[in-house]
Amino acid sequence: MAPSLLTTPSQALALAPGAAASRVGGGGGGGSARRRGALGMRVRASVAIEKETPESEPPPTFLREDGSGAGSGSVRERFEAMIRRVQGEVCAALEEADGSGARFVEDVWSRPGGGGGISRVLQDGRVFEKAGVNVSVVYGVMPPDAYRAAKGEAGKNGAAADGPKAGPVPFFAAGISSVLHPKNPFAPTLHFNYRYFETDAPKDAPGAPRQWWFGGGTDLTPSYIIEEDVKHFHSVQKQACDKFDPSFYPRFKKWCDDYFYIKHRNERRGLGGIFFDDLNDYDQEMLLNFATECADSVVPAYIPIIERRKDTPFTEEHKAWQQLRRGRYVEFNLVYDRGTTFGLKTGGRIESILVSLPLTARWQYDHTPEEGTEERKLLDACINPKEWLDL
Amino acid sequence: MAPSLLTTPSQALALAPGAAASRVGGGGGGGSARRRGALGMRVRASVAIEKETPESEPPPTFLREDGSGAGSGSVRERFEAMIRRVQGEVCAALEEADGSGARFVEDVWSRPGGGGGISRVLQDGRVFEKAGVNVSVVYGVMPPDAYRAAKGEAGKNGAAADGPKAGPVPFFAAGISSVLHPKNPFAPTLHFNYRYFETDAPKDAPGAPRQWWFGGGTDLTPSYIIEEDVKHFHSVQKQACDKFDPSFYPRFKKWCDDYFYIKHRNERRGLGGIFFDDLNDYDQEMLLNFATECADSVVPAYIPIIERRKDTPFTEEHKAWQQLRRGRYVEFNLVYDRGTTFGLKTGGRIESILVSLPLTARWQYDHTPEEGTEERKLLDACINPKEWLDL
Repeated sequence: MAPSLLTTPSQALALAPGAAASRVGGGGGGGSARRRGALGMRVRASVAIEKETPESEPPPTFLREDGSGAGSGSVRERFEAMIRRVQGEVCAALEEADGSGARFVEDVWSRPGGGGGISRVLQDGRVFEKAGVNVSVVYGVMPPDAYRAAKGEAGKNGAAADGPKAGPVPFFAAGISSVLHPKNPFAPTLHFNYRYFETDAPKDAPGAPRQWWFGGGTDLTPSYIIEEDVKHFHSVQKQACDKFDPSFYPRFKKWCDDYFYIKHRNERRGLGGIFFDDLNDYDQEMLLNFATECADSVVPAYIPIIERRKDTPFTEEHKAWQQLRRGRYVEFNLVYDRGTTFGLKTGGRIESILVSLPLTARWQYDHTPEEGTEERKLLDACINPKEWLDL
Repeated sequence: MAPSLLTTPSQALALAPGAAASRVGGGGGGGSARRRGALGMRVRASVAIEKETPESEPPPTFLREDGSGAGSGSVRERFEAMIRRVQGEVCAALEEADGSGARFVEDVWSRPGGGGGISRVLQDGRVFEKAGVNVSVVYGVMPPDAYRAAKGEAGKNGAAADGPKAGPVPFFAAGISSVLHPKNPFAPTLHFNYRYFETDAPKDAPGAPRQWWFGGGTDLTPSYIIEEDVKHFHSVQKQACDKFDPSFYPRFKKWCDDYFYIKHRNERRGLGGIFFDDLNDYDQEMLLNFATECADSVVPAYIPIIERRKDTPFTEEHKAWQQLRRGRYVEFNLVYDRGTTFGLKTGGRIESILVSLPLTARWQYDHTPEEGTEERKLLDACINPKEWLDL
C-alpha cells in the first residue's frame, strides 16, 4: 500500500479479476453498460470489469445496503463519511485561501462492480497553481496475486490469503488523496492521503479471519526552508500523533523520510511529515480516530503557512528553483510512488491519477546549487533528513 | 535493449556483478580509485564496481589493447569510431543551426572496469532549449540475470547464456544517444540512438557461440503537424533503409510506432520514425554499414526542418501546447523507456540518463484539444499512427 494507492476507483478496480486483461492496449472508453446488480461482496471470478462511468452528481454514499456496509454504522461507513467531510472542508479552506473566486471543479464517477469516487481540482487560481483533492470508495473481489501485491512484499498481515489454494479475495478500499501546488516559491507543496482497507476470507477458506488496515500520511515539500513553517507543520503532525501513542510521531516521521526517497538522486522529495502503512496492530476504533485526527490536521497544519507565504515577493531565480524541485516531484511520482505506478500500469482514470503532477516542472542539466545558498540548504535537508522538533 | 539503454557508462556498468549492491542507497560518489588492470574480458565474479570517474579530456579510444578490441579493425573499434565521429558532426551542425555562439559543454568519464563515455549538452541556446548528445563504450562482465534482462523477454538470441548453469557473461556495449528539444513550438524534438552489443560465451560454457546485435532508431516528436516536415523526415529514414533492404522501412517504422507508446494514455509520444532492436539476422558488416547510414542521416533529416521552423512566430497557446506534449515526453521516458528506467534502477550518472528530459514541461488537468484544431490533429496522429509516405 502506498500514499496514493486506491485513491482512484481504477486503482482498486484494477485489482478485480479480468481488469488487467480488459485494459491491455489502453483504449479510451470501451463498453460501459452499468451493472448495478448485487455484486458487492460476492466472488466474481473471471468477470471483466468495465471502466468507471461518469456521474452527474455525488451519491449520498458509495456503499450499498446489500452487504457492502451502508446503514450499518460500520468502520467502512464512518470512514467514507469522514473522507467526504474532509474533502469538503479542505476544498473550502483552499478556495478561501486562494481568494480569487476560483472554485474546485468536480468529477464524479461510479464503477459497475461497486463504489465510485469524486475528484476535485482547482487549477490556475491566484494562490494555487494546481490543487487536487480526490476521494474514492471501491469494493469487489481481487485475485490472490493482486492481494499479495497490494499488501507489499512484507506481507505481515498475509495469513488469510497467502495459502497456495487461496481464491479471489473480497475487498473494500476507501481513501482521500490530495496534492496542493501553490504558485509562490516560498509556499510549500502539500500531499496527504488517508485510506482504509478490508479483505474478507477468500471464498475457499471460510474459516480465515477478516482483515483490515489503515494507511496514510501528510508531507510537506517546500522549495525553501522557512524554519517557522516546517516546525509548525511537523508540530501539528506530532500533536495529532501524540493524542494516540507517543511512539507514533518518531516512528511515522522516519517512515515518511524513508518512503519519499528518490533513490536515483539520493534525495527525499521534500521535508517529510508522517507516513504509515498496513497499520492494524492497534484497536480498530482507535486507528479510525487517529486517521480522522490526521486528516483533520491538514487545514491547521497547512493553511497558516499558505496565508503567510502566498504573497511573498520572489525573483525569477526563486521560481526556477521551485520548478527544478517540481521536476523532482514528477520523478518521485512517476518512478517510485507505488500508487501512481500501480495505477498507470493497470489503467483507469489517468487524469485523476496524474493530478498529483505539478502544472509545470523543469530539468536543467547538471544543476547543483552553490554552497551556502538557500537552495543548497534545502537540498542538504532532502539528502540528510533533519529532526525539526525537540523530541 | 531499448533506445537509450547502454548509452551511458553507468547503464552498462550496472550490468556488472556487484554493481547493484554497491549502489543501494544511492550515494553521491563513493570510492573511485581507478583500476586500469587487464580486466577487459576476464570474468570477475563478485567484484564491486565503483562509479564512473570524471576525466579531463576524451581519450583517442575507450578500447584497450588487452583484448577489448583496440587496434584490431574489429566491429567494436569501427563502431566506436563511427559514433564518436557522428557525435562531433551532429554537435557541430546543431551549434551552427543554433547560431547564438552557444557551445556544447562536454563531460568525459571512464569506468574502472573498462570503457567510458562523453556527454555533450547545449542548454538554453537561441534555437535549442536543451540538446544532449552522448556516446559511451563499455565492457566487462555481467551476471546471467542481467544478461537476460538486457536481452528482453523475447530472448531470441538467448541460446548461449540461458541455460541453468550459465555464469557471468563478458559483454561489450557501445552507443550514441541524443535528444534535441528546440524552443520554437513548430520545431520538433528529435531523438536518435544507435548501439552495438556483443557477448562472449559464458565462462562455464566455452563452446557456446559469441553473439552480437545492433539496435537503434531515429524518431520525431513535433507539437504541430507540418506535413512537409514529417514527410521529409520519414523519407530520409526510408532512403537510409532502402539502401539495405526494402523491408526495413515499413518494418522499423511500425516497430517505432509500437515502441514509443504511452500505454496509460493510449498515445504515441510523437510521429515516429524508425526503431529496431536485437538485429543480428543479417551480415554483420551490412548492419554496421546500416547503423552508420542511419546515424549519418540525422543531420540531413533534421537540420533542414530546424532551419525552416526555428523562427516561426508563435503564441503563448502554441507554447503551452508544446509544454503539454513535453509532459508526455517525460511520462514516456520515466515510465516506459527501458534504457531510462533500467538506468534509474541501477544507479549511475543520473545527469546523463536524464538529459533526455526537456528543460520545461506541463501537466494540465483533463486537457483535451477541441475537434478541428491543429492540436487535436497532432493528438489524433499520436493515437492512430499514420503512413507518411506513399509506399
